[in-house]
Amino acid sequence: MKKDNDIITPFIKDPIKWYNDIIFKAELIIYGPTKGTMYFRPYSFKIWDLIIKNLTEEFNKEGIEEVKFPLIFPKSLLDKEKNHIEGFAPEVLVITQIGNKKLNDFNVIRPTSEMLFSDYFKKTIKTYTQLPIKLNQWVNVVRWENNTRPFLRNSEFYWQEGHTVHNNEKEARKFAFIIHNIYQKFLKDSLLLPVISGEKSANERFAGAINSYTQETILKDGQALQSATSHYLGDNFAKSINFKIQNEKNDFFYPFQTSWGTSTRLIGGIIMTHSDDNGLVLPSKIAPFQIVIIKITDKKNDNDLNSFIKKLYLKLRNKFRVKIDDSNQSFGYRIKNWEIKGVPIIFEIGKKEISNKKIILKLRTENKKREIKLVDLDNKNIFNFLKLNDKNILEKALLNFENKKIWIKNLDELKKNIDDKRVCYCYWFEDSNLEDKIKKETGATIRLLYHEKNQSLAINNKEKTTQVAVFARSY
Amino acid sequence: MKKDNDIITPFIKDPIKWYNDIIFKAELIIYGPTKGTMYFRPYSFKIWDLIIKNLTEEFNKEGIEEVKFPLIFPKSLLDKEKNHIEGFAPEVLVITQIGNKKLNDFNVIRPTSEMLFSDYFKKTIKTYTQLPIKLNQWVNVVRWENNTRPFLRNSEFYWQEGHTVHNNEKEARKFAFIIHNIYQKFLKDSLLLPVISGEKSANERFAGAINSYTQETILKDGQALQSATSHYLGDNFAKSINFKIQNEKNDFFYPFQTSWGTSTRLIGGIIMTHSDDNGLVLPSKIAPFQIVIIKITDKKNDNDLNSFIKKLYLKLRNKFRVKIDDSNQSFGYRIKNWEIKGVPIIFEIGKKEISNKKIILKLRTENKKREIKLVDLDNKNIFNFLKLNDKNILEKALLNFENKKIWIKNLDELKKNIDDKRVCYCYWFEDSNLEDKIKKETGATIRLLYHEKNQSLAINNKEKTTQVAVFARSY
Repeated sequence: MKKDNDIITPFIKDPIKWYNDIIFKAELIIYGPTKGTMYFRPYSFKIWDLIIKNLTEEFNKEGIEEVKFPLIFPKSLLDKEKNHIEGFAPEVLVITQIGNKKLNDFNVIRPTSEMLFSDYFKKTIKTYTQLPIKLNQWVNVVRWENNTRPFLRNSEFYWQEGHTVHNNEKEARKFAFIIHNIYQKFLKDSLLLPVISGEKSANERFAGAINSYTQETILKDGQALQSATSHYLGDNFAKSINFKIQNEKNDFFYPFQTSWGTSTRLIGGIIMTHSDDNGLVLPSKIAPFQIVIIKITDKKNDNDLNSFIKKLYLKLRNKFRVKIDDSNQSFGYRIKNWEIKGVPIIFEIGKKEISNKKIILKLRTENKKREIKLVDLDNKNIFNFLKLNDKNILEKALLNFENKKIWIKNLDELKKNIDDKRVCYCYWFEDSNLEDKIKKETGATIRLLYHEKNQSLAINNKEKTTQVAVFARSY
Repeated sequence: MKKDNDIITPFIKDPIKWYNDIIFKAELIIYGPTKGTMYFRPYSFKIWDLIIKNLTEEFNKEGIEEVKFPLIFPKSLLDKEKNHIEGFAPEVLVITQIGNKKLNDFNVIRPTSEMLFSDYFKKTIKTYTQLPIKLNQWVNVVRWENNTRPFLRNSEFYWQEGHTVHNNEKEARKFAFIIHNIYQKFLKDSLLLPVISGEKSANERFAGAINSYTQETILKDGQALQSATSHYLGDNFAKSINFKIQNEKNDFFYPFQTSWGTSTRLIGGIIMTHSDDNGLVLPSKIAPFQIVIIKITDKKNDNDLNSFIKKLYLKLRNKFRVKIDDSNQSFGYRIKNWEIKGVPIIFEIGKKEISNKKIILKLRTENKKREIKLVDLDNKNIFNFLKLNDKNILEKALLNFENKKIWIKNLDELKKNIDDKRVCYCYWFEDSNLEDKIKKETGATIRLLYHEKNQSLAINNKEKTTQVAVFARSY
């Protein structure tokens, strides 16, 4: 690391190598010993932890409570919901032995926990007066993947999975949308990601759901990333395990469920959207350090400078996530290191700066250095610099998105533009077979469907519709 | 739950039923579908979350950083440290299939992560200047258990596992003790548990460690609970995977490691130490709600009362974890429910109380109700009531511990007192064979060894020693 921290392969030269250079040089992860697993190093864990804290705050406002449910459960339980097992069976990890001893009942590692939550609900909910119940857990899940890519597609990943139970369809549907909107706001406002929101087509729907709503992020390379989904499950899971409760008249009915999740893929989305050839670029809401203070000297024992910096640090610490880099590395190395790590604001401070009552401030998204008078270094100004950095990040991301987006009028245009790594919009009537065919020929899927205000001619039909399909390749 | 929330089997009648009544009626957990797994309901997750927050604060002060490492890894990696694999092989869960497809390389679910951390250290540490490295993770681990008991012995449990690397033995040993002391302080001061601290005998040592230091809690029933351990690993794990780094002279050496952990067993320890025949009793530091406000009426729409309570709640919320119970249940039910859940302070407030400018306050550890003038209801007084409740909890626990503790002079006394469910102290020379024999005959093991200031005659030798062994049955 010491000598090569400035060498990141340019994105334009090799996007895959560029991506890997960033995750390794920013010390986010190293690969785990089993393919598709990762060691989350302190820096990436801090990012994930901030995502957890931000979203949990929103979940709390909706009365959602945190739980921890089992990692493993009998394979027979997974088999109960027909569509669900068809979707997950090929990638589920099966435990058949304890040590060298064969298990009678095979267990699986949760690929998701709909069956567990349904089992729990069945055992704890007896009557409509107990509803709604809104639970969430932040846990790891495992789905075996052959084509893995750090953060974007892993065998083991971390996520939150929320599960709720409601007395009627209307309330459950409404809640699925409340969560859908929380995700959208979080992705846009906190992660500064360009997102498209809509519903999954039947082909792409969550296994076992009636409706799946998705937030899709469009990445630097024109591929889409399914970033957060919210599912209306109806009473499918309740029926699969005969989970009934009593209504006001003491009659039994199947209650209505939702489930919803977002994962460490978000970190992949952040990297793949905001980073540049100098490394990570982090939004202020999830930057482990919003400000790093770097001394303009390689000497360690300059007491005046040290105590000045310490005082500044203690002042800033109350409002910002701030760090002093007092490592043994050279000044140049330290500057480069925190640039690679995507820190929004770097303060450079030396003897000259103190005597001039100024410091040097550099935003990650600007090429220039600014001189800031010490008297102007108040919380409000620093907060505004973070906002400016965030604004720069968002504008660049939206510009990229606009460049990737294209309306297409027929299937030939679709194929050509998918090959050009674009995100293709078109008016569309649902047609699973044609969707399959396009997937085979182009690698693109319908990322989502949504409705425009006005009708237009569909590309796969002679009729008009308000429904738009967005096609793209995806991770 | 509605009608039977007041029926807890008395401890004296049936300790096992008493324990189970409490965990189910306090809504801590229900059993998971696989034996030895549990659904952590919101109330127990909140307790665990507070344990995490309290300990993480202490870990941060020591410069320990949080990570997340893989859940699964190749079985071949586990096999590398000889003692380690001998200890864990019989209880490790083995993944042999993905769906119905046989895996070429079997994987295991982590029973602990020494091998993973060592692998990570080997891949990221090259030179002594990078040390010390201090990492921790809060995760789930799985060890198959045949005799399970909620919280006290589960197949899946949550824990933190810390792992550090040091340049020399002295520093590593010192750090193992720093953690040992953090645990001791936390168990005593925050969880109010009576603990004995010392070192494990060779028979009871962690598989792969050179020294294991333990905090043992003595429970209500006279059994010991290994509550937190800190291990000095020497260079055993480094050697097992040939993990060498360079020193100042560029020579290679094996660095020195520690590992340390505490788990959701602590919740079992809290229940089994502090609870009474009315339910849970929670220390203020880890009580999900320190204060619950209950209206002395079953009417919901008393606006004056509601707004008075809301105002009080908003005031208290800044300093305490407080909850208003405005559920549909009867007054009597609500009182009983929060007593079972072990809330330190209950406020009862009705119309009469408001007009008299008083409220009724009841501590979980007292049988009496107190009238408190509203003017006296300031943060300092409430804080003192929490302290008083904690003091009552600790005194009762210590009294029980003193009643269970006995010095024994020979093996006959040992056997008799173990059968009487006591914790037996004796001067002792290490003797693995005799230790094994005692275990077979009495079910008791040496929970720990420590040294008294003065020598005395050992019970298994004609010589004097300062070393004391503490024998007890354990969970």
